[in-house]
Formats: sequence, C-alpha cells, structure tokens
Amino acid sequence: MKNNQAIGVFDSGIGGLTVVRSLMERLPAENIIYFGDTARVPYGVKSVETINRYASQITEFLIKKKVKLLIVACNTMAAVAYRTIKGLSHVPVLEVINASARNAVTQAHAKSIGVIGTPATINSNAYARAIRLLDKKVKIFSQACPLFVPLVEEGLLNHRATKLIAEEYLKPLLAEKIDTLVLGCTHYPLLKPLLQDIVGRRVKLIDSAEAMADITAELIEKQNIGNNSKREPNYLFYVSDVPYRFQSIGEKFLGRKFSQVKVISL
Amino acid sequence: MKNNQAIGVFDSGIGGLTVVRSLMERLPAENIIYFGDTARVPYGVKSVETINRYASQITEFLIKKKVKLLIVACNTMAAVAYRTIKGLSHVPVLEVINASARNAVTQAHAKSIGVIGTPATINSNAYARAIRLLDKKVKIFSQACPLFVPLVEEGLLNHRATKLIAEEYLKPLLAEKIDTLVLGCTHYPLLKPLLQDIVGRRVKLIDSAEAMADITAELIEKQNIGNNSKREPNYLFYVSDVPYRFQSIGEKFLGRKFSQVKVISL
Repeated sequence: MKNNQAIGVFDSGIGGLTVVRSLMERLPAENIIYFGDTARVPYGVKSVETINRYASQITEFLIKKKVKLLIVACNTMAAVAYRTIKGLSHVPVLEVINASARNAVTQAHAKSIGVIGTPATINSNAYARAIRLLDKKVKIFSQACPLFVPLVEEGLLNHRATKLIAEEYLKPLLAEKIDTLVLGCTHYPLLKPLLQDIVGRRVKLIDSAEAMADITAELIEKQNIGNNSKREPNYLFYVSDVPYRFQSIGEKFLGRKFSQVKVISL
Repeated sequence: MKNNQAIGVFDSGIGGLTVVRSLMERLPAENIIYFGDTARVPYGVKSVETINRYASQITEFLIKKKVKLLIVACNTMAAVAYRTIKGLSHVPVLEVINASARNAVTQAHAKSIGVIGTPATINSNAYARAIRLLDKKVKIFSQACPLFVPLVEEGLLNHRATKLIAEEYLKPLLAEKIDTLVLGCTHYPLLKPLLQDIVGRRVKLIDSAEAMADITAELIEKQNIGNNSKREPNYLFYVSDVPYRFQSIGEKFLGRKFSQVKVISL
C-alpha cells in the first residue's frame, strides 16, 4: 500500500460528489477516484438483489484501480450491500451510515433522531440499527423521501413545490419532536437551507457528506496512510453514462468544475 | 407466423403498462408479452448510446420469445433507438411517436401542437420530425418535463406540488396558443385530468397509449394476423427488477391486477 494511492469513492450517480467535495476540503492532499453509476441511477427504489449485484461490479472495478481505501458514499448501497462490498475488498471500506449515525449520537447528543432517505435505505432499517448500537436509549423515527432525488437533480432547491413535498414528508417526524435530523442520502445536503427552514433552528441537521469526511480523516491518520506528496492531487471521475445536464448538475454537487471525466460501462 | 403468437410490448419501466391497458381494451383476444426495464429506469435522462444499447438487449430478448409484432411503448426509445430496434427485428415494429403524431395531425386537425416528454425525447426532436412529415404547416412547440415521471410514480396525480410544476412546464406552450398537446411519455396519461385543467378544455390532449392501440389494431387487421382463438388471452410480464411498490404502482398503470410477473436480468 502506497500513501499516494487514491481514495476510491462510489455512488449510484452524481450525489456522491457531495462526499467528494467534503473530502477535497478536509483532505486536500488526497488523490480521489470516483465512480458514479449514472446509467443505472437511481438505486433507492431497486430491489436488494439488484443493488447488491451492481455494488459488486463497482467494487471490483475500483479495486482494480488500486485504491487504498473504499468509500461507499451511497446510503442505499451502504444500507443493503455493505457486507457484499466488504467481502470483495482487501482495503478498508468506510460507509456513510455508520459515519452519520455516529455524528448524530455523539456530536448532536441526540435524544430523538429523525432519519430521512430513499425507500431502500429507510426500509433496510440500517440507520436505526447503527444508531442503536451506539445508544440504546435514543428514539428513532424514519421517513422515506422518494421525490427529493429528482427534485434536487432538477435544481428545484428552493422551489414552492419542493417545500410543499418536504413539509409533507417531515410532518410525522416533527410530530415526534425530533431534535436531530439525519440527511440519509447524498443528494440531501443541497436541500439543507430549505429543510432547516421547515424543521426550525432547534433541530440539528446531520450531513452525511461531512460525516464521511470526518471518519475518513480519522482512519487515514490512525493508519498513517495520508498522502505526503507535494504535488497537486489527481481527481478522476468515472461514470457509466453522461446523462442529461450531467456537467451542470454534477458541478453543482461538486462545488467546482470537473477535471477528468471518463465514461465506462460495467 | 402464427396468429396466436403474442404481441411484444416494451418500455423502460412500468409506464408502458398504459399501452398494454389500451391494447387489452382494444384487442381483447391478443396475447401480450411485456418487458419493463425496471432495474435501469428511467431512460429519459440517459445518453443516446446507452439507450440504444439497452434497447438492443430488450429487442433480442422479445424476438427470442417469438412475438408476432413489436411495440416500442417507451417514447424515449422510440425517439432515439427506433432504427436500432428495427434493424434487429424480422417482425413489424410499431412505435409510439408516429402513432401520436398521426393522431395529433389527423384526429385533432391541429394547427399548433405542443409536445411534452422526457428530456431525451424532446432533445431528439423526433416528434417535430414525425409531425412535419404529415403536415408541413403545423407549428410545433416542445417542452421537457423531467419531473412528471417521478411525480406520477409517487402517485401525486392531483397534488398541489404537481400542479405547480406542471403550470411552469406548460406556461411557455400556452403562451404560444397551442390547440393540441401530445402527451409524449407513457406516464403522462395518468396526469390527464390535471393537465386538462391547466391547459383548458379547448386544447385537445393526445394520449400516446390510445394512439398505439389505434395503429396496432390497424396493422393487425391489414396483415390479417389477429388471434382467432377462443381461449382467454395470456398476459406475461417480464421486469428486470421488482422495485419499491411495484405491485401497487404497476396495477395503477395497468388498471387491473397482474397475472404473471417474472424477473429477468438482461
């Protein structure tokens, strides 16, 4: 293992670019290889079997690229395919659900946590399990928000329609008086201002992209595998398709222009 | 070719079930085999190359099932992969765009046509080409409506959020004083009441599912390949995944309960 090997980050589509953005900010020396399965996105409504099959293909692809660390940015894959991915990888695998659960319990001192995510993530119950392992007393309330991904991808980040839909999704969570809300999908950080507005200032939002950067920085320090090179880091983006408005939407997620984008079909 | 061979209908997902529903009503003796690529839906935002690759796989699958006729229910595939599909098929191929274009021009006597569809369908310009071939004088105005598919799949058929979004999409078409609106996506017939409400009674809506049933009935009569068997027809549904709420959403599109559903990965 060489310290200048890249961190491999993967996601069902472009949402994981919010994780890449956080990693670039937190770990500016690290090389990153990203894979986004833009041809087959979204995963959040697919079956467990199909998600596992696709996750295996992506893991094998990134392992061949000789990454030093694998990051499962996609909440849906982390929720239902973590064991499959772990079983195929000889390098450490970090995933977003434990990262967010930890930040919710330790940073937010939560007593009553709301979790929002795709149907597959919420139905898997993975967040509830991860949070209970850390704190048995905390109350957990979950809500699937299937329309948030398309609304975000269409750029309706502050639209009245998005607000109406968000209010409906969040109503049952607010009725339970949650004090913390886990944004259990890589797309949701882009809705932060709108969501904070609806839930009010007293509810702490847990951003899964930031949580991923936190645990990645810790692991890299602990295992002493940080990149010490003085060179500019290399960022390489693989996608399985170049969909409609990929450039503009992707750059909104990434917060900067793309450098190298390559298309590859798995 | 035997008359009791099935009609093959294919779509990117469950939307094409609106076409199956129209076929069941119009041609109640016909056997039908459906393929919905639910693992890789939606196609409407994918690249032309990827859509063609997937369309080829589905065509080959249905040809092996010995269908007597192929129906491309998906507007997106019809718009960008018709030649590919036609090149792989020795049986007649009917597709939704010419069907809808014809109904708009001949049945609606349109002078100014609005076309709504997915980004891939609208960007392909296929509707404008098909309509111009039939009538050079008619004016055509197009609008991509990328959020309609997820809104319909979530069942928000009469929701305020859907209405807000629909009003924005349709505003530029209404400004052009269209007299006819082509619903250029299999999902859109489920939004008919809401759309009719927005565009007003004077605008005629062209339903692509009904248009498909019209041209299929004509071809079957002309080629004398109708099923004369007295048996109950056989309906077989293949999907590439069983996604979230498949049963309830699918049956809403189909207008009845599923009989046989089989999962197959291409």
